[in-house]
Amino acid sequence: MTTELEQQIAAAQEAVTKQGDTVRSLKASAKEGKAEKSEVDAAIQKLAELKLALESKQKEFEKVTGKVSSQSKEALRAALAGVLERRMFYIPSFKIYGSVAGFYDYGPPGCAIKQNMTQVWRNHFVLEENMLEVECPAVTPEVVLKASGHVDRFTDFMVTDAVTGECFRADHLLEGHLEALLEDKKNPVSPEKAKEIRDLLAGVGELKADTMGAALQAYDVRAPGTGNAISAPFAFNLMFKTSIGPKGDMVGYLRPETAQGIFVNFRDLLYYNGGKLPFAAAQIGNSYRNEISPRAGLLRVREFTQAEIEHFVNGDDKRHPKFPLVADLRPLLYSRELQMGEEKKAAPMSLGEAVSRGIIANETLAYFIGRTWLFFCKIGVNPARMRFRQHLQHEMAHYATDCWDGEVETTYGWVECVGLADRSAYDLKAHSGMSKIDLTAFEKFPEPRMEEVVKVVPNNKELGAAFKKDQKAVKEALEALDSNAALDVKAKLESAGVATIATCDGQQFEVKASMVEIKKVTEKVTGKTYTPSVIEPSFGIGRIMYCMFEHCYYTREGDETRAVMGFKPVVAPTKATVFPLVQKPALNDLAARLSRELTAAGLSNLIDTTGNTIGKRYARTDEIGVPFAVTVDFQSVEGDGSVTLRERDSMTQVRVPAGEVAGVIRDLVDDRTTWEAVSGKYPAQKASADDE
Amino acid sequence: MTTELEQQIAAAQEAVTKQGDTVRSLKASAKEGKAEKSEVDAAIQKLAELKLALESKQKEFEKVTGKVSSQSKEALRAALAGVLERRMFYIPSFKIYGSVAGFYDYGPPGCAIKQNMTQVWRNHFVLEENMLEVECPAVTPEVVLKASGHVDRFTDFMVTDAVTGECFRADHLLEGHLEALLEDKKNPVSPEKAKEIRDLLAGVGELKADTMGAALQAYDVRAPGTGNAISAPFAFNLMFKTSIGPKGDMVGYLRPETAQGIFVNFRDLLYYNGGKLPFAAAQIGNSYRNEISPRAGLLRVREFTQAEIEHFVNGDDKRHPKFPLVADLRPLLYSRELQMGEEKKAAPMSLGEAVSRGIIANETLAYFIGRTWLFFCKIGVNPARMRFRQHLQHEMAHYATDCWDGEVETTYGWVECVGLADRSAYDLKAHSGMSKIDLTAFEKFPEPRMEEVVKVVPNNKELGAAFKKDQKAVKEALEALDSNAALDVKAKLESAGVATIATCDGQQFEVKASMVEIKKVTEKVTGKTYTPSVIEPSFGIGRIMYCMFEHCYYTREGDETRAVMGFKPVVAPTKATVFPLVQKPALNDLAARLSRELTAAGLSNLIDTTGNTIGKRYARTDEIGVPFAVTVDFQSVEGDGSVTLRERDSMTQVRVPAGEVAGVIRDLVDDRTTWEAVSGKYPAQKASADDE
Repeated sequence: MTTELEQQIAAAQEAVTKQGDTVRSLKASAKEGKAEKSEVDAAIQKLAELKLALESKQKEFEKVTGKVSSQSKEALRAALAGVLERRMFYIPSFKIYGSVAGFYDYGPPGCAIKQNMTQVWRNHFVLEENMLEVECPAVTPEVVLKASGHVDRFTDFMVTDAVTGECFRADHLLEGHLEALLEDKKNPVSPEKAKEIRDLLAGVGELKADTMGAALQAYDVRAPGTGNAISAPFAFNLMFKTSIGPKGDMVGYLRPETAQGIFVNFRDLLYYNGGKLPFAAAQIGNSYRNEISPRAGLLRVREFTQAEIEHFVNGDDKRHPKFPLVADLRPLLYSRELQMGEEKKAAPMSLGEAVSRGIIANETLAYFIGRTWLFFCKIGVNPARMRFRQHLQHEMAHYATDCWDGEVETTYGWVECVGLADRSAYDLKAHSGMSKIDLTAFEKFPEPRMEEVVKVVPNNKELGAAFKKDQKAVKEALEALDSNAALDVKAKLESAGVATIATCDGQQFEVKASMVEIKKVTEKVTGKTYTPSVIEPSFGIGRIMYCMFEHCYYTREGDETRAVMGFKPVVAPTKATVFPLVQKPALNDLAARLSRELTAAGLSNLIDTTGNTIGKRYARTDEIGVPFAVTVDFQSVEGDGSVTLRERDSMTQVRVPAGEVAGVIRDLVDDRTTWEAVSGKYPAQKASADDE
Repeated sequence: MTTELEQQIAAAQEAVTKQGDTVRSLKASAKEGKAEKSEVDAAIQKLAELKLALESKQKEFEKVTGKVSSQSKEALRAALAGVLERRMFYIPSFKIYGSVAGFYDYGPPGCAIKQNMTQVWRNHFVLEENMLEVECPAVTPEVVLKASGHVDRFTDFMVTDAVTGECFRADHLLEGHLEALLEDKKNPVSPEKAKEIRDLLAGVGELKADTMGAALQAYDVRAPGTGNAISAPFAFNLMFKTSIGPKGDMVGYLRPETAQGIFVNFRDLLYYNGGKLPFAAAQIGNSYRNEISPRAGLLRVREFTQAEIEHFVNGDDKRHPKFPLVADLRPLLYSRELQMGEEKKAAPMSLGEAVSRGIIANETLAYFIGRTWLFFCKIGVNPARMRFRQHLQHEMAHYATDCWDGEVETTYGWVECVGLADRSAYDLKAHSGMSKIDLTAFEKFPEPRMEEVVKVVPNNKELGAAFKKDQKAVKEALEALDSNAALDVKAKLESAGVATIATCDGQQFEVKASMVEIKKVTEKVTGKTYTPSVIEPSFGIGRIMYCMFEHCYYTREGDETRAVMGFKPVVAPTKATVFPLVQKPALNDLAARLSRELTAAGLSNLIDTTGNTIGKRYARTDEIGVPFAVTVDFQSVEGDGSVTLRERDSMTQVRVPAGEVAGVIRDLVDDRTTWEAVSGKYPAQKASADDE
């Protein structure tokens, strides 16, 4: 049985390939006027049908074999990709010059969706939370990215084909090789070997150059395609480098993230906010990563849009006043504990419980997890297929307190779309250290307090006599000691008579008891100076868009050839279409007037007077996910003055007075009303046989 | 009299400088809790007053001397710059690292205004004209910009200081030197010399490397600051260069304009549009120019946002169906004729007249001029201080049909904010030539026509015998002849028996009559293939913002210390403020509720419960141009349930029921109603003495 099915699948696959060729040549003919656009569309339709037939065979195969084959996922992905490319949601950039990997153009519907999604993001985060939105350049001088660590550490390991010089990501190569070994049915590995491979796979992300090199050698990994030997892995910096100014002496990079623009502005933003903390700043903009081997469409590209928030807060108090508003939400949480457990499966848990049980480190981080979850729901990601995965301890940078990734399930597996990290005071300290500019905040106590403080009083004369030109450095080092360090020095001076002091340039000096007085005194303290902690939710807009596309894509029941992009109205690129039922001047005129009214209400719309059947028109607009359709008929101009308004997903229809239709759609798009409410208010209209 | 005034101006200038220092040190103290924010604000206020006092002295000086001194413009500019920087509209990027010339960050109000302005642009152009909006990467492979001509020709002339190596723009240096000569009162130049200098100044933009060099030498121009000799001018390419991919063998640039992304997508966009022309595509995005010496704030920066439209149209028919909608608009037009005339002054003229008199080349170009003018009015540029200046013949590229710059008058003079150009078919032909991809459109005639066409039938045998390996090239050259060229060849063959043919690589061949038959035949023709012309309106968003800032800035009558940014509500960064009249829980609660209602209506708002006087609060919000203020008083919670709504520019107030206020403001912002109508509908409220 499976053999027969496999043959059918192969045949179906061939048919898809052939029809693809037909479509291409018809398009070329249409260009020269030798074929009609309708012929091209029919061929494309046929191609879609063949793809779906292939998919359905593959689904059958899965049922029989009892597992989801990777082909099936690829078929769904291919069917969706067909719609996305045909309707120009996005296409490879510079196509007429053969394209460049990792760059995509958004065509009209993609561009509109991206615009709508970022606007929802802005309303949901910036407006509702009164965040300070900024916009900073992508071109960034080296010093900024030196301070942030990107110049030294923003690298991937690369290997090259020893003969051709072709470049590969070392981790991808190793993973691919190991996965192939595990899946090899002809030469199965021993259970012990399989365990070894799985353990190695789980830790690929943590390998260093030497351990990665050893693993590649141990498994005799070779260059894909050629089978040639590969070089030892070496670090490749992912930033695009350029030069600023005419002299050529100032190195610049394209920013690899938008966050640094916010950090370097912290001082001005704090002043703008009246010196008060906590506050959040946000930035939406493009970032750049010169990926070694871009792949998977929008998921790994070299230029992409980020929306990042830096929430600055006193590290001693990470409560959030609005936390109660999200405490009862129950997103899927995939905690460290669950990841280390047997089932390895995320589970819903209320954010309130997660914080009180210490699973999420603090209220502010949990608040943003909740808000992020609500954002994903708003734009049409299926919340049952979204989870928050906590970073394992070894995945986190040493300074991070807690990190969670917002992941969405797709045909590519779980895709990281958002990173939510409590980065402590690392970023501000790094920039303060490099720029020598104070990036602290001052918390004024409600009342001054009497506090015991440790005072360090250097004896200038003694220090000068002992250290000459180094006097100043030693003095500064003594004054910079924090309370505990100062008390340590005091103890050493009292016990041994000397203590070792390190200056900021790393030199060490022996200080004697006579050179400094260290004492505890009680002082009136009006407040506290501290470097704020940062909680950073960072969104990858392109990835979120792609995941949303997968979740919104479906086919009409009973007709697998009819693809629908079930976009939420607020996200949909075109909010409504206007059709005259037949080509008559009076109907066309009213349709044109309604289109103008929709435009005046800020609603993107298309008027279709091609004379296609209503069913065909719906099929075309379903593919770009138009949520509402307005049909003008004879009744509209001669009878009751009403038009038919149809909702895409339910395919139900109501009769609405022509003058009210723009307002009704505006309210539906803005979520001020629901289709249910509209259906209750206006009389229903049966769909004609022609409709489907 | 003038001497006395000049002394007063000098004293006022010194006072401003001193107060600037005071503000800086107070800010530092406030940081450490040693000064109150109110002290800082008072000092800043004082600084603003001193600046305005300086300005008023300068105005007086102008009246006496009868001319606008450059200092006065600079004073206005400084006063505005004070507001813009203090309120963080925009600030130099990377400030804590000493900044990098030509890069600016938009702070919260600037970012919101930019967002609002681009949204107005999108609604005004993309939505209303059903344009195809795209988004393409900034990183661009070399071949694209080679085809467009940017790799070879996107340069400015640069000179360097012979000793220090410092770089300067040659044209700026020459202009500065010549202007100084003209203005030098101590050593006035002769009238003949002055005329020579003025003529040279008018043509600086057209100088080539050698003529520029000659002029710099003739006038003995030296490096600013040092007075050293300068190098000969040389071309410096303004594009930021980078490398794409890990191998380092693919040169890329940051795009110097967004337009090329549209051109390379022409084929897909045409298909998307159902093969029909005309259509327009648009793109909003960042472009990059590595300026030699950035200056004048937002007016010449290295990274900036463009909004560009490419309207593709059949070159034979540049009428526009919607032209009648703008034909009666009368913007200031500064035609070639007026520029060459005596008065050198723009004059209002209806667009209909300008087209019919042949002043503007065609309806489509004029349509976009009209739409551009409406856009500027919508966002708050004073139409009386905006003009469209036609390019002189020698300013235009050889392929351009007609070009107009949208210019706005500011303290920097007339600033070019928009370029509107009819670029003929140049761009598509350039990319088609480089990519070898057909970028033509096909116009199908309504009915096939019988037309006389010229047929060129090469004789392969004869060509092969005569030209051997060049046969193919000669054959292609013959077939590529257009009708007129073919008839020329025919005539030559008939008269002289031979004709010279140039192949595409520039070689020439002698063709004999026996080698080709050229004949006129009558054929059924179904349509025409052509390369579309492009009409390009290109907007510089940052420049427009700056010009708008200058036009919106004013001070309250009778109180020159109170700066107001009179933004149009649709552009304003914050739409409304909510103030409780006094600090009482009931009033604060209602204020908080109204703030939430405004947010829910998508209206950015600030709630101010600082307890400052109403007058002080207004002064603060005037500076960021908040158009509406809602004040909650005891009547609001205990009496009539109404609140006071105040409009910024008229300072008039009405009483509006609390539940209606968000809706009223939404309608005002969306231009669905006017303040006049609102004032007519709701009862007026007298302003209290405290208000001003």
